[in-house]
Amino acid sequence: MKRLQLTLAYDGTAYCGWQIQAGRSDQPTIQGELEKVLARLCGETVRAHGSGRTDAGVHALEQVVHVDIPDSKTQITFRRALNALLPDDIACISARIVPDAFHSRYSALSKTYAYTLWLENAFLLPQRRAFVWKTGPLNMQAMQAAAAFFCGEHDFCSFQNVGTPVKSTVRNLTALRFDPGQTAHECVVRLSANGFLKQQVRNMLGLLVAIGRGQYEPEVVERALAAQDRRAIAYQTAPAQGLCLEHVEYPALDTL
Amino acid sequence: MKRLQLTLAYDGTAYCGWQIQAGRSDQPTIQGELEKVLARLCGETVRAHGSGRTDAGVHALEQVVHVDIPDSKTQITFRRALNALLPDDIACISARIVPDAFHSRYSALSKTYAYTLWLENAFLLPQRRAFVWKTGPLNMQAMQAAAAFFCGEHDFCSFQNVGTPVKSTVRNLTALRFDPGQTAHECVVRLSANGFLKQQVRNMLGLLVAIGRGQYEPEVVERALAAQDRRAIAYQTAPAQGLCLEHVEYPALDTL
Repeated sequence: MKRLQLTLAYDGTAYCGWQIQAGRSDQPTIQGELEKVLARLCGETVRAHGSGRTDAGVHALEQVVHVDIPDSKTQITFRRALNALLPDDIACISARIVPDAFHSRYSALSKTYAYTLWLENAFLLPQRRAFVWKTGPLNMQAMQAAAAFFCGEHDFCSFQNVGTPVKSTVRNLTALRFDPGQTAHECVVRLSANGFLKQQVRNMLGLLVAIGRGQYEPEVVERALAAQDRRAIAYQTAPAQGLCLEHVEYPALDTL
Repeated sequence: MKRLQLTLAYDGTAYCGWQIQAGRSDQPTIQGELEKVLARLCGETVRAHGSGRTDAGVHALEQVVHVDIPDSKTQITFRRALNALLPDDIACISARIVPDAFHSRYSALSKTYAYTLWLENAFLLPQRRAFVWKTGPLNMQAMQAAAAFFCGEHDFCSFQNVGTPVKSTVRNLTALRFDPGQTAHECVVRLSANGFLKQQVRNMLGLLVAIGRGQYEPEVVERALAAQDRRAIAYQTAPAQGLCLEHVEYPALDTL
Protein backbone atom coordinates (compact mmCIF):
# COMPACT_ATOMS: atom_id res chain seq x y z
CA MET A 1 0.00 0.00 0.00
CA LYS A 2 1.07 3.56 -0.69
CA ARG A 3 -0.26 6.62 1.10
CA LEU A 4 -1.70 9.27 -1.18
CA GLN A 5 -2.33 12.85 -0.10
CA LEU A 6 -5.21 14.54 -1.92
CA THR A 7 -6.13 18.20 -1.74
CA LEU A 8 -9.79 18.77 -2.56
CA ALA A 9 -11.83 21.89 -3.24
CA TYR A 10 -15.60 21.69 -3.03
CA ASP A 11 -18.78 23.64 -3.24
CA GLY A 12 -20.49 22.12 -0.21
CA THR A 13 -24.00 23.38 -1.07
CA ALA A 14 -25.38 20.01 -2.15
CA TYR A 15 -23.66 17.88 0.52
CA CYS A 16 -24.40 16.75 4.06
CA GLY A 17 -20.80 17.64 4.92
CA TRP A 18 -17.51 15.83 4.54
CA GLN A 19 -18.25 12.70 6.51
CA ILE A 20 -20.30 9.67 5.49
CA GLN A 21 -23.38 9.55 7.71
CA ALA A 22 -23.52 6.17 9.47
CA GLY A 23 -26.53 4.21 8.24
CA ARG A 24 -27.49 7.06 5.86
CA SER A 25 -25.83 6.09 2.61
CA ASP A 26 -28.57 8.01 0.76
CA GLN A 27 -27.19 11.31 2.14
CA PRO A 28 -24.60 12.73 -0.27
CA THR A 29 -21.25 13.48 1.38
CA ILE A 30 -17.86 14.53 0.01
CA GLN A 31 -16.21 11.48 1.56
CA GLY A 32 -18.87 9.22 0.06
CA GLU A 33 -18.40 10.63 -3.45
CA LEU A 34 -14.63 10.40 -3.16
CA GLU A 35 -14.65 6.81 -1.87
CA LYS A 36 -17.03 5.77 -4.65
CA VAL A 37 -14.62 7.05 -7.31
CA LEU A 38 -11.54 5.65 -5.53
CA ALA A 39 -13.17 2.19 -5.31
CA ARG A 40 -13.79 2.36 -9.04
CA LEU A 41 -10.18 3.36 -9.76
CA CYS A 42 -8.58 0.89 -7.34
CA GLY A 43 -10.96 -2.04 -7.71
CA GLU A 44 -11.35 -2.28 -3.93
CA THR A 45 -12.71 -0.34 -0.98
CA VAL A 46 -10.52 2.65 -0.13
CA ARG A 47 -11.14 4.64 3.03
CA ALA A 48 -10.65 8.43 2.81
CA HIS A 49 -9.41 10.30 5.90
CA GLY A 50 -10.09 14.03 5.92
CA SER A 51 -8.18 16.63 7.96
CA GLY A 52 -11.48 17.34 9.67
CA ARG A 53 -15.21 17.14 9.13
CA THR A 54 -16.79 20.06 7.41
CA ASP A 55 -20.50 20.55 8.20
CA ALA A 56 -23.35 20.29 5.73
CA GLY A 57 -23.16 23.24 3.33
CA VAL A 58 -19.60 24.25 4.28
CA HIS A 59 -17.12 24.72 1.41
CA ALA A 60 -13.43 23.98 1.01
CA LEU A 61 -10.60 25.42 -1.03
CA GLU A 62 -8.03 22.98 0.41
CA GLN A 63 -9.43 20.05 2.32
CA VAL A 64 -6.54 17.63 2.79
CA VAL A 65 -7.28 13.92 2.68
CA HIS A 66 -5.14 10.81 2.84
CA VAL A 67 -5.96 7.40 1.37
CA ASP A 68 -3.99 4.16 1.13
CA ILE A 69 -3.94 2.70 -2.35
CA PRO A 70 -2.72 -0.70 -3.55
CA ASP A 71 0.86 -0.69 -4.88
CA SER A 72 -0.49 -1.90 -8.20
CA LYS A 73 -2.43 1.34 -8.62
CA THR A 74 0.36 3.85 -8.04
CA GLN A 75 0.78 4.45 -11.76
CA ILE A 76 -2.66 6.08 -11.94
CA THR A 77 -2.52 9.86 -12.37
CA PHE A 78 -5.00 10.38 -9.58
CA ARG A 79 -5.63 14.10 -10.03
CA ARG A 80 -6.67 13.64 -13.62
CA ALA A 81 -8.66 10.48 -12.91
CA LEU A 82 -10.49 12.02 -9.95
CA ASN A 83 -11.35 15.18 -11.84
CA ALA A 84 -12.73 13.10 -14.69
CA LEU A 85 -14.94 11.01 -12.39
CA LEU A 86 -15.92 13.24 -9.45
CA PRO A 87 -19.08 15.38 -9.67
CA ASP A 88 -18.25 18.91 -10.81
CA ASP A 89 -18.83 20.40 -7.34
CA ILE A 90 -15.77 18.49 -6.06
CA ALA A 91 -12.29 19.02 -7.57
CA CYS A 92 -8.92 17.48 -6.86
CA ILE A 93 -6.33 20.27 -6.73
CA SER A 94 -3.35 18.01 -6.13
CA ALA A 95 -2.44 14.36 -5.52
CA ARG A 96 0.92 13.00 -4.40
CA ILE A 97 2.43 10.00 -2.67
CA VAL A 98 3.49 10.86 0.91
CA PRO A 99 5.30 8.90 3.68
CA ASP A 100 3.12 6.45 5.61
CA ALA A 101 3.71 8.61 8.68
CA PHE A 102 1.60 11.37 7.14
CA HIS A 103 -1.92 11.60 8.58
CA SER A 104 -4.32 14.23 7.26
CA ARG A 105 -5.75 14.83 10.72
CA TYR A 106 -3.03 13.99 13.24
CA SER A 107 -0.15 15.56 11.30
CA ALA A 108 -1.97 18.88 10.87
CA LEU A 109 -0.28 21.81 12.60
CA SER A 110 -3.00 24.34 12.00
CA LYS A 111 -6.09 25.09 9.96
CA THR A 112 -7.39 28.28 8.44
CA TYR A 113 -11.08 28.92 7.87
CA ALA A 114 -12.58 31.90 6.08
CA TYR A 115 -16.06 33.15 6.87
CA THR A 116 -17.60 35.65 4.47
CA LEU A 117 -20.09 38.26 5.63
CA TRP A 118 -22.35 40.20 3.24
CA LEU A 119 -22.69 43.68 4.75
CA GLU A 120 -25.33 45.22 2.49
CA ASN A 121 -28.91 44.97 3.71
CA ALA A 122 -30.78 46.09 0.60
CA PHE A 123 -29.77 43.23 -1.69
CA LEU A 124 -27.61 40.13 -1.99
CA LEU A 125 -25.67 39.56 -5.20
CA PRO A 126 -27.04 36.23 -6.54
CA GLN A 127 -23.56 35.18 -7.71
CA ARG A 128 -22.41 35.26 -4.06
CA ARG A 129 -25.46 33.84 -2.32
CA ALA A 130 -24.04 30.33 -1.83
CA PHE A 131 -20.86 31.64 -0.19
CA VAL A 132 -21.84 34.42 2.22
CA TRP A 133 -23.99 35.21 5.25
CA LYS A 134 -26.08 38.31 4.63
CA THR A 135 -25.85 40.16 7.93
CA GLY A 136 -26.27 43.75 6.78
CA PRO A 137 -24.02 46.53 8.14
CA LEU A 138 -21.93 45.69 11.21
CA ASN A 139 -19.81 47.69 13.64
CA MET A 140 -16.40 46.43 12.54
CA GLN A 141 -14.55 48.26 15.29
CA ALA A 142 -16.57 46.45 17.94
CA MET A 143 -15.94 43.13 16.16
CA GLN A 144 -12.22 43.78 15.98
CA ALA A 145 -12.17 44.58 19.69
CA ALA A 146 -14.05 41.34 20.36
CA ALA A 147 -11.65 39.37 18.16
CA ALA A 148 -8.78 40.26 20.51
CA PHE A 149 -10.52 38.36 23.34
CA PHE A 150 -10.69 35.22 21.20
CA CYS A 151 -6.99 35.14 20.26
CA GLY A 152 -4.59 32.88 22.12
CA GLU A 153 -5.10 29.62 24.00
CA HIS A 154 -8.53 29.18 25.54
CA ASP A 155 -10.96 26.50 26.51
CA PHE A 156 -13.44 26.97 23.66
CA CYS A 157 -16.05 24.55 25.00
CA SER A 158 -18.64 27.37 25.10
CA PHE A 159 -18.28 27.53 21.33
CA GLN A 160 -18.74 23.89 20.48
CA ASN A 161 -21.99 22.17 19.83
CA VAL A 162 -23.66 20.87 22.96
CA GLY A 163 -23.03 17.19 23.56
CA THR A 164 -19.99 16.67 21.31
CA PRO A 165 -17.52 14.43 23.19
CA VAL A 166 -13.82 15.40 22.73
CA LYS A 167 -10.79 14.83 25.00
CA SER A 168 -9.81 18.46 25.32
CA THR A 169 -11.65 21.60 24.33
CA VAL A 170 -8.57 23.81 24.64
CA ARG A 171 -7.43 25.30 21.33
CA ASN A 172 -4.89 27.96 20.39
CA LEU A 173 -6.39 30.58 18.10
CA THR A 174 -3.30 32.03 16.39
CA ALA A 175 -5.03 34.51 14.09
CA LEU A 176 -8.40 36.19 13.64
CA ARG A 177 -8.36 38.92 11.07
CA PHE A 178 -10.78 40.88 8.89
CA ASP A 179 -9.93 40.99 5.19
CA PRO A 180 -11.64 42.63 2.20
CA GLY A 181 -13.84 40.28 0.17
CA GLN A 182 -14.44 39.68 -3.53
CA THR A 183 -16.91 42.55 -3.75
CA ALA A 184 -17.14 45.86 -1.93
CA HIS A 185 -20.08 44.49 0.08
CA GLU A 186 -18.14 41.66 1.71
CA CYS A 187 -15.80 41.14 4.62
CA VAL A 188 -13.86 37.91 5.11
CA VAL A 189 -13.10 36.83 8.66
CA ARG A 190 -10.04 34.53 8.62
CA LEU A 191 -9.32 32.32 11.61
CA SER A 192 -6.30 30.09 12.19
CA ALA A 193 -5.83 27.65 15.07
CA ASN A 194 -4.16 24.37 15.93
CA GLY A 195 -7.63 22.89 15.68
CA PHE A 196 -11.31 23.78 15.88
CA LEU A 197 -14.16 22.16 17.79
CA LYS A 198 -17.38 21.17 16.06
CA GLN A 199 -19.14 24.34 14.85
CA GLN A 200 -16.62 26.48 16.74
CA VAL A 201 -16.07 28.89 13.85
CA ARG A 202 -19.79 29.26 13.19
CA ASN A 203 -20.49 29.87 16.87
CA MET A 204 -17.64 32.39 17.16
CA LEU A 205 -18.95 34.17 14.07
CA GLY A 206 -22.46 34.14 15.50
CA LEU A 207 -21.30 35.95 18.62
CA LEU A 208 -19.04 38.32 16.65
CA VAL A 209 -21.97 39.32 14.45
CA ALA A 210 -24.21 39.82 17.51
CA ILE A 211 -21.49 42.18 18.79
CA GLY A 212 -21.26 43.87 15.38
CA ARG A 213 -25.02 44.46 15.56
CA GLY A 214 -24.69 46.09 18.96
CA GLN A 215 -26.48 43.35 20.88
CA TYR A 216 -23.44 42.87 23.13
CA GLU A 217 -20.28 44.74 24.07
CA PRO A 218 -16.99 43.17 22.85
CA GLU A 219 -16.23 42.09 26.43
CA VAL A 220 -19.04 39.53 26.25
CA VAL A 221 -16.49 37.19 24.62
CA GLU A 222 -14.67 36.90 27.97
CA ARG A 223 -17.90 36.01 29.73
CA ALA A 224 -18.85 33.52 27.02
CA LEU A 225 -15.45 31.77 27.21
CA ALA A 226 -15.58 31.67 31.02
CA ALA A 227 -19.11 30.28 31.12
CA GLN A 228 -18.05 26.99 29.47
CA ASP A 229 -21.60 26.65 28.24
CA ARG A 230 -22.89 27.37 24.71
CA ARG A 231 -26.20 28.57 26.14
CA ALA A 232 -24.75 31.14 28.56
CA ILE A 233 -24.96 33.94 25.98
CA ALA A 234 -27.80 33.92 23.46
CA TYR A 235 -26.87 34.33 19.79
CA GLN A 236 -27.47 32.69 16.42
CA THR A 237 -24.93 30.17 15.09
CA ALA A 238 -23.65 31.55 11.77
CA PRO A 239 -25.09 29.66 8.78
CA ALA A 240 -22.93 27.06 7.03
CA GLN A 241 -22.77 28.57 3.55
CA GLY A 242 -20.51 31.47 4.60
CA LEU A 243 -17.80 29.10 5.82
CA CYS A 244 -14.86 27.72 3.83
CA LEU A 245 -11.92 25.55 4.92
CA GLU A 246 -9.11 27.46 3.24
CA HIS A 247 -5.88 25.77 4.26
CA VAL A 248 -4.39 23.02 6.42
CA GLU A 249 -0.76 23.45 7.47
CA TYR A 250 1.56 20.43 7.86
CA PRO A 251 5.21 20.03 8.81
CA ALA A 252 7.68 19.31 6.00
CA LEU A 253 7.15 15.69 4.93
CA ASP A 254 10.78 14.73 5.68
CA THR A 255 10.29 15.68 9.32
CA LEU A 256 7.30 13.38 9.86
CA MET B 1 -47.88 56.10 -15.34
CA LYS B 2 -44.39 56.63 -13.99
CA ARG B 3 -41.26 55.19 -15.55
CA LEU B 4 -39.16 53.14 -13.16
CA GLN B 5 -35.53 52.23 -13.83
CA LEU B 6 -34.46 48.93 -12.26
CA THR B 7 -30.92 47.60 -12.07
CA LEU B 8 -30.87 43.83 -11.77
CA ALA B 9 -28.11 41.34 -10.99
CA TYR B 10 -28.65 37.69 -11.80
CA ASP B 11 -27.09 34.29 -11.81
CA GLY B 12 -28.28 33.22 -15.25
CA THR B 13 -27.54 29.49 -14.77
CA ALA B 14 -31.15 28.41 -14.39
CA TYR B 15 -32.66 30.72 -17.03
CA CYS B 16 -33.29 30.63 -20.76
CA GLY B 17 -31.92 34.16 -20.93
CA TRP B 18 -33.43 37.59 -20.31
CA GLN B 19 -36.27 37.50 -22.80
CA ILE B 20 -39.62 35.72 -22.52
CA GLN B 21 -39.69 33.01 -25.19
CA ALA B 22 -42.77 33.51 -27.39
CA GLY B 23 -45.16 30.62 -26.93
CA ARG B 24 -42.84 28.99 -24.36
CA SER B 25 -44.13 30.28 -21.04
CA ASP B 26 -42.78 27.11 -19.38
CA GLN B 27 -39.20 28.27 -20.07
CA PRO B 28 -37.94 30.32 -17.12
CA THR B 29 -36.61 33.75 -18.11
CA ILE B 30 -35.45 36.76 -16.11
CA GLN B 31 -38.03 38.98 -17.80
CA GLY B 32 -40.75 36.43 -17.04
CA GLU B 33 -39.86 36.23 -13.35
CA LEU B 34 -39.67 40.03 -13.08
CA GLU B 35 -42.99 40.61 -14.85
CA LYS B 36 -44.71 38.03 -12.64
CA VAL B 37 -43.59 39.87 -9.49
CA LEU B 38 -44.39 43.32 -10.95
CA ALA B 39 -47.91 42.16 -11.88
CA ARG B 40 -48.39 41.02 -8.30
CA LEU B 41 -47.14 44.36 -6.92
CA CYS B 42 -49.03 46.58 -9.37
CA GLY B 43 -52.22 44.55 -9.78
CA GLU B 44 -51.91 44.70 -13.56
CA THR B 45 -49.68 43.53 -16.41
CA VAL B 46 -46.38 45.43 -16.47
CA ARG B 47 -44.01 44.99 -19.40
CA ALA B 48 -40.27 44.99 -18.56
CA HIS B 49 -37.83 46.40 -21.14
CA GLY B 50 -34.22 45.27 -20.76
CA SER B 51 -31.17 47.11 -22.11
CA GLY B 52 -30.54 44.02 -24.19
CA ARG B 53 -31.18 40.30 -24.28
CA THR B 54 -28.74 38.14 -22.40
CA ASP B 55 -28.53 34.55 -23.70
CA ALA B 56 -29.46 31.45 -21.74
CA GLY B 57 -26.91 30.94 -18.95
CA VAL B 58 -25.40 34.45 -19.21
CA HIS B 59 -25.13 36.43 -15.97
CA ALA B 60 -25.56 40.10 -15.10
CA LEU B 61 -24.18 42.42 -12.47
CA GLU B 62 -26.09 45.43 -13.83
CA GLN B 63 -28.82 44.69 -16.31
CA VAL B 64 -30.81 47.90 -16.65
CA VAL B 65 -34.56 47.62 -17.16
CA HIS B 66 -37.37 50.12 -17.42
CA VAL B 67 -41.02 49.54 -16.58
CA ASP B 68 -44.04 51.83 -16.49
CA ILE B 69 -46.02 51.59 -13.29
CA PRO B 70 -49.41 53.05 -12.39
CA ASP B 71 -49.25 56.38 -10.53
CA SER B 72 -51.11 54.74 -7.65
CA LYS B 73 -48.17 52.38 -7.08
CA THR B 74 -45.33 54.90 -6.90
CA GLN B 75 -45.28 54.71 -3.10
CA ILE B 76 -44.04 51.10 -3.23
CA THR B 77 -40.38 50.73 -2.28
CA PHE B 78 -39.70 48.60 -5.33
CA ARG B 79 -36.17 47.45 -4.48
CA ARG B 80 -37.29 45.99 -1.18
CA ALA B 81 -40.50 44.53 -2.61
CA LEU B 82 -38.71 42.95 -5.58
CA ASN B 83 -35.97 41.44 -3.43
CA ALA B 84 -38.60 39.95 -1.14
CA LEU B 85 -40.53 38.37 -4.01
CA LEU B 86 -37.98 37.53 -6.74
CA PRO B 87 -36.22 34.14 -6.72
CA ASP B 88 -32.84 34.35 -5.00
CA ASP B 89 -30.91 34.08 -8.27
CA ILE B 90 -32.28 37.50 -9.30
CA ALA B 91 -31.65 40.64 -7.23
CA CYS B 92 -32.70 44.24 -7.61
CA ILE B 93 -29.68 46.46 -6.95
CA SER B 94 -31.50 49.76 -7.38
CA ALA B 95 -34.90 51.17 -8.34
CA ARG B 96 -35.70 54.78 -9.11
CA ILE B 97 -38.23 56.90 -10.98
CA VAL B 98 -36.74 58.32 -14.19
CA PRO B 99 -38.03 60.72 -16.87
CA ASP B 100 -40.40 59.17 -19.44
CA ALA B 101 -37.72 59.89 -22.07
CA PHE B 102 -35.45 57.25 -20.51
CA HIS B 103 -35.38 53.97 -22.43
CA SER B 104 -33.23 51.11 -21.15
CA ARG B 105 -32.24 50.10 -24.67
CA TYR B 106 -32.43 53.23 -26.84
CA SER B 107 -30.89 55.59 -24.27
CA ALA B 108 -27.86 53.34 -23.68
CA LEU B 109 -24.55 54.90 -24.72
CA SER B 110 -22.42 51.80 -24.20
CA LYS B 111 -22.33 48.39 -22.58
CA THR B 112 -19.57 46.52 -20.86
CA TYR B 113 -19.41 42.73 -20.77
CA ALA B 114 -16.90 40.64 -18.83
CA TYR B 115 -15.92 37.19 -19.99
CA THR B 116 -13.97 35.05 -17.52
CA LEU B 117 -11.47 32.44 -18.68
CA TRP B 118 -10.16 29.64 -16.42
CA LEU B 119 -6.55 29.09 -17.47
CA GLU B 120 -5.65 25.99 -15.45
CA ASN B 121 -6.07 22.67 -17.23
CA ALA B 122 -5.64 20.28 -14.31
CA PHE B 123 -8.71 21.31 -12.33
CA LEU B 124 -11.58 23.76 -12.12
CA LEU B 125 -12.45 25.29 -8.76
CA PRO B 126 -16.08 24.18 -8.12
CA GLN B 127 -16.92 27.56 -6.58
CA ARG B 128 -16.16 29.19 -9.95
CA ARG B 129 -17.59 26.61 -12.35
CA ALA B 130 -20.82 28.49 -13.07
CA PHE B 131 -18.97 31.68 -14.00
CA VAL B 132 -15.96 30.71 -16.14
CA TRP B 133 -14.93 28.91 -19.32
CA LYS B 134 -12.19 26.39 -18.61
CA THR B 135 -9.85 26.85 -21.55
CA GLY B 136 -6.54 25.84 -19.98
CA PRO B 137 -3.37 27.90 -20.60
CA LEU B 138 -3.49 30.48 -23.39
CA ASN B 139 -0.96 32.64 -25.14
CA MET B 140 -2.02 36.00 -23.72
CA GLN B 141 0.39 37.98 -25.89
CA ALA B 142 -1.18 36.57 -29.03
CA MET B 143 -4.64 37.35 -27.67
CA GLN B 144 -3.66 40.90 -26.82
CA ALA B 145 -2.29 41.36 -30.34
CA ALA B 146 -5.56 40.00 -31.74
CA ALA B 147 -7.59 42.31 -29.51
CA ALA B 148 -6.05 45.33 -31.24
CA PHE B 149 -7.66 44.25 -34.52
CA PHE B 150 -11.09 44.19 -32.90
CA CYS B 151 -10.95 47.69 -31.42
CA GLY B 152 -12.62 50.58 -33.18
CA GLU B 153 -15.58 50.75 -35.54
CA HIS B 154 -16.13 47.64 -37.65
CA ASP B 155 -18.86 45.70 -39.34
CA PHE B 156 -19.10 42.83 -36.86
CA CYS B 157 -21.53 40.74 -38.91
CA SER B 158 -19.00 37.86 -39.01
CA PHE B 159 -19.40 37.67 -35.24
CA GLN B 160 -23.15 37.56 -35.00
CA ASN B 161 -25.28 34.48 -35.07
CA VAL B 162 -26.24 33.41 -38.58
CA GLY B 163 -29.69 34.60 -39.57
CA THR B 164 -30.24 37.33 -36.98
CA PRO B 165 -31.89 40.30 -38.76
CA VAL B 166 -30.64 43.74 -37.62
CA LYS B 167 -30.55 47.08 -39.45
CA SER B 168 -26.83 47.66 -39.12
CA THR B 169 -24.08 45.32 -37.99
CA VAL B 170 -21.54 48.12 -37.51
CA ARG B 171 -20.49 48.62 -33.90
CA ASN B 172 -17.77 50.65 -32.22
CA LEU B 173 -15.70 48.56 -29.82
CA THR B 174 -14.23 51.17 -27.49
CA ALA B 175 -12.32 48.84 -25.15
CA LEU B 176 -11.09 45.26 -25.02
CA ARG B 177 -8.79 44.61 -22.10
CA PHE B 178 -7.47 41.70 -20.08
CA ASP B 179 -7.85 42.00 -16.31
CA PRO B 180 -6.87 39.72 -13.43
CA GLY B 181 -9.72 37.57 -12.10
CA GLN B 182 -10.95 36.55 -8.65
CA THR B 183 -8.40 33.74 -8.42
CA ALA B 184 -4.88 33.35 -9.80
CA HIS B 185 -6.22 30.90 -12.40
CA GLU B 186 -8.56 33.39 -14.07
CA CYS B 187 -8.37 36.14 -16.63
CA VAL B 188 -11.26 38.53 -17.25
CA VAL B 189 -11.72 39.89 -20.77
CA ARG B 190 -13.67 43.17 -20.56
CA LEU B 191 -15.29 44.57 -23.68
CA SER B 192 -17.10 47.89 -24.10
CA ALA B 193 -18.99 49.02 -27.18
CA ASN B 194 -21.91 51.22 -28.22
CA GLY B 195 -23.76 47.94 -28.71
CA PHE B 196 -23.23 44.26 -29.36
CA LEU B 197 -24.81 41.90 -31.90
CA LYS B 198 -26.38 38.60 -30.84
CA GLN B 199 -23.62 36.32 -29.48
CA GLN B 200 -20.99 38.81 -30.65
CA VAL B 201 -19.01 38.65 -27.41
CA ARG B 202 -19.12 34.86 -27.27
CA ASN B 203 -18.01 34.60 -30.90
CA MET B 204 -15.21 37.13 -30.40
CA LEU B 205 -14.07 35.20 -27.32
CA GLY B 206 -14.23 31.96 -29.25
CA LEU B 207 -11.86 33.31 -31.89
CA LEU B 208 -9.61 34.97 -29.29
CA VAL B 209 -9.26 31.65 -27.44
CA ALA B 210 -8.51 29.81 -30.70
CA ILE B 211 -5.72 32.37 -31.22
CA GLY B 212 -4.57 31.93 -27.61
CA ARG B 213 -4.35 28.18 -28.27
CA GLY B 214 -2.17 28.76 -31.32
CA GLN B 215 -4.76 27.61 -33.86
CA TYR B 216 -4.58 30.96 -35.65
CA GLU B 217 -2.28 33.97 -35.83
CA PRO B 218 -3.67 37.23 -34.37
CA GLU B 219 -4.10 38.61 -37.90
CA VAL B 220 -6.92 36.12 -38.51
CA VAL B 221 -9.21 38.70 -36.87
CA GLU B 222 -8.81 40.99 -39.89
CA ARG B 223 -9.72 38.16 -42.22
CA ALA B 224 -12.69 37.16 -40.06
CA LEU B 225 -14.02 40.75 -39.98
CA ALA B 226 -13.55 41.15 -43.73
CA ALA B 227 -15.25 37.85 -44.57
CA GLN B 228 -18.65 39.10 -43.26
CA ASP B 229 -19.52 35.46 -42.64
CA ARG B 230 -19.50 33.64 -39.27
CA ARG B 231 -18.43 30.42 -41.01
CA ALA B 232 -15.39 31.85 -42.82
CA ILE B 233 -13.05 30.95 -39.94
CA ALA B 234 -13.76 27.82 -37.89
CA TYR B 235 -13.82 28.19 -34.09
CA GLN B 236 -16.02 27.34 -31.14
CA THR B 237 -18.46 29.95 -29.77
CA ALA B 238 -17.48 30.58 -26.14
CA PRO B 239 -19.95 29.00 -23.71
CA ALA B 240 -22.56 31.21 -22.03
CA GLN B 241 -21.59 30.70 -18.39
CA GLY B 242 -18.35 32.72 -18.67
CA LEU B 243 -20.22 35.83 -19.77
CA CYS B 244 -21.59 38.61 -17.56
CA LEU B 245 -23.27 41.91 -18.48
CA GLU B 246 -21.36 44.22 -16.14
CA HIS B 247 -22.52 47.73 -16.88
CA VAL B 248 -24.74 49.85 -19.13
CA GLU B 249 -23.78 53.48 -19.54
CA TYR B 250 -26.45 56.19 -19.98
CA PRO B 251 -26.32 59.95 -20.41
CA ALA B 252 -27.20 62.09 -17.38
CA LEU B 253 -30.98 61.87 -16.89
CA ASP B 254 -31.44 65.66 -17.19
CA THR B 255 -29.98 65.58 -20.72
CA LEU B 256 -32.48 63.01 -22.03
